[in-house]
Amino acid sequence: MKPVPASPLPAESPLPPGWKCYMSPQGRRYYVNTASNETTWERPSSAPGTPKGSLKHKNSIPAGVFEPWLLEGNALHLAYLHSHINCVTFPLPMNVPEQQLLKPNEWSYCDYFWSDKKDPQGAASVSGFEVLLQKQLKGKQMQKEMAEFIRERIKIEEEYAKNLSKLSQIPLAAQEEGTLGEAWAQLKKSLADEAEVHLKFSSKLHTEVEKPLLTFRENFKKDMKKFDHHISDLRKQLVSRYAAVEKARKALADRQKDLEIKTQQLEIKLSNKTEEDIKKARRKSTQAGDDLMRCVDLYNQSQSKWFEEMVTTSLELERLEVERVEMIRQHLCQYTTLRHETDMFNQSTVEPVDQLLQNVDPAKDRELWVKEHKTGDVRPVDLEL
Amino acid sequence: MKPVPASPLPAESPLPPGWKCYMSPQGRRYYVNTASNETTWERPSSAPGTPKGSLKHKNSIPAGVFEPWLLEGNALHLAYLHSHINCVTFPLPMNVPEQQLLKPNEWSYCDYFWSDKKDPQGAASVSGFEVLLQKQLKGKQMQKEMAEFIRERIKIEEEYAKNLSKLSQIPLAAQEEGTLGEAWAQLKKSLADEAEVHLKFSSKLHTEVEKPLLTFRENFKKDMKKFDHHISDLRKQLVSRYAAVEKARKALADRQKDLEIKTQQLEIKLSNKTEEDIKKARRKSTQAGDDLMRCVDLYNQSQSKWFEEMVTTSLELERLEVERVEMIRQHLCQYTTLRHETDMFNQSTVEPVDQLLQNVDPAKDRELWVKEHKTGDVRPVDLEL
Repeated sequence: MKPVPASPLPAESPLPPGWKCYMSPQGRRYYVNTASNETTWERPSSAPGTPKGSLKHKNSIPAGVFEPWLLEGNALHLAYLHSHINCVTFPLPMNVPEQQLLKPNEWSYCDYFWSDKKDPQGAASVSGFEVLLQKQLKGKQMQKEMAEFIRERIKIEEEYAKNLSKLSQIPLAAQEEGTLGEAWAQLKKSLADEAEVHLKFSSKLHTEVEKPLLTFRENFKKDMKKFDHHISDLRKQLVSRYAAVEKARKALADRQKDLEIKTQQLEIKLSNKTEEDIKKARRKSTQAGDDLMRCVDLYNQSQSKWFEEMVTTSLELERLEVERVEMIRQHLCQYTTLRHETDMFNQSTVEPVDQLLQNVDPAKDRELWVKEHKTGDVRPVDLEL
Repeated sequence: MKPVPASPLPAESPLPPGWKCYMSPQGRRYYVNTASNETTWERPSSAPGTPKGSLKHKNSIPAGVFEPWLLEGNALHLAYLHSHINCVTFPLPMNVPEQQLLKPNEWSYCDYFWSDKKDPQGAASVSGFEVLLQKQLKGKQMQKEMAEFIRERIKIEEEYAKNLSKLSQIPLAAQEEGTLGEAWAQLKKSLADEAEVHLKFSSKLHTEVEKPLLTFRENFKKDMKKFDHHISDLRKQLVSRYAAVEKARKALADRQKDLEIKTQQLEIKLSNKTEEDIKKARRKSTQAGDDLMRCVDLYNQSQSKWFEEMVTTSLELERLEVERVEMIRQHLCQYTTLRHETDMFNQSTVEPVDQLLQNVDPAKDRELWVKEHKTGDVRPVDLEL
């Protein structure tokens, strides 16, 4: 099955807001809603109720497409059109240039984690999706550690405030009199005011920084586990269907060989019985071809489903990561604001922090991270016969 | 001896800088150098080498002033010209309005501590000088306690800095990456910078506030003890000389009575022997009169010396107190400056301290304190016969 270019629509209406057009591995147009990450083959229109074809059907094959020419050739040579890595079908290098990135210039997760990644020790290997998942879990851990850091800061401020407040009440030099006595009393009182300021700082740190950092996405790990299970279930299905394809391919080869032998026998000595045998062998071979066809179809359905889940889930992870970075940025800004309200240094120590916080850019961070950790941008393609 | 008004100088040259003119208890002009507290009866001139008569001589009586009229009257009635409190001679209330303050409008120590003060319990009584001395020692104690207070503040700052510095090095969320990671690293680093600022603050507090407060006038208590011993020695001398005056007064009274008896005897029976007796009794009476005169003279010398020491010492204490208040004010200002350099609050807690420190006024403080603690502004006068 060759990639079929999508026939251009006679009159292309503009896309509704939020939708973008991309090219599929097979060179077919498909559409992504950048807000909801919804994907569809069908060009969305602004008219409500327009039916949309899901990516799920992108690999479905019309019934009866199986061509007998396959029986003439050698089914084994078709394996050279693909490479299989852990039962996933990738195009051969000569076919790779046909693939364009799903989201060019965006360093999107959905483009760079199709291959598996060897462990630094080289022993085990992790799937691209696991790399993404580990990034998310690490992010969650970082957020928790930041909350811990803020908690420590709160404790330091509370201790400082407590000590200042205690000192301001110690009756040292309380008997100093006159205007000097007044100034001294005010100096002592100023410590209580300072204590108040630091106590307020620590209390606001708690409610406005620590708590939001701690409670943001409480069910995150559970959600990630769900994603993980879902994707690995699909991978397991893929493995079993790949085995079924191999088995069917072998059965077809056997049937083809049998048919060939029978045909050679026909050349030697023609008989009714042999002709009957050839008919039977051809029927069986066609049946085995049909069977292989069905297995490949099932396999491609599985891979398609997995592919679709990989894209939507990695886009979701991407969205979650942007959200996390933005949330942390916002709360660290809140921290520096509170620091400013509490103490203003002549040469502010939090100013550089503020500047760097302004420069925080989830897209940039993703680019850096993806460049370092990407496992492969070559996407799987349908298994063809 | 009646107070003799000083004859106005025919042409008064202006006083040299620093000198002021006051009226003595006897209505005589004398001069005080407000810088050195030097006192003199003689009008100082700007010309160098001008001899100056000391206050020491103010009560000296020219030899041979003793007039026999004393023998005619009753020596006892003269006691009504004075009141004696603890052997110090004060004028009677009718003579008090003649006294003007030595330093009018200045609430100077030297004007208000001439009487003794009853304890609040009413049992013991303390001299005016002791009241002044206690004020000085309390002032020294206050200064020491302020240094202690600053020491505590230093400890709090050191602890705070130590905790901030320690926290900034804890590797929490150290693995956060990209621009967010950079901002986070800077935020952690800012704690080390804050710690640095507070450490600098505590170190400057030590060298620029605590240490000067602690070391200012290290020998102060010893110096005060010296003053105390000196003044009480003079008071003891006064007591013994007062006793001598009383004894001589009694001896004179006895001699006068004897002379009177002898004179009455002469009226009854005139004889050579009686006339001889009268001559002898008159001689003895005159001798007793001379003796009393000498005792009074010695007493007045003692009282004068004590008076002078009281004035110069209390002026010195006054100067020391002004110096102490100014020193403390200056170092508390240094404290607020350092506070400002360390932390600037939007609504500064040290601002009211600054304002009150600007209002610190040793003269005002003295006025308040003198008003509350003064023991008496009636000055001792010479004992007269």
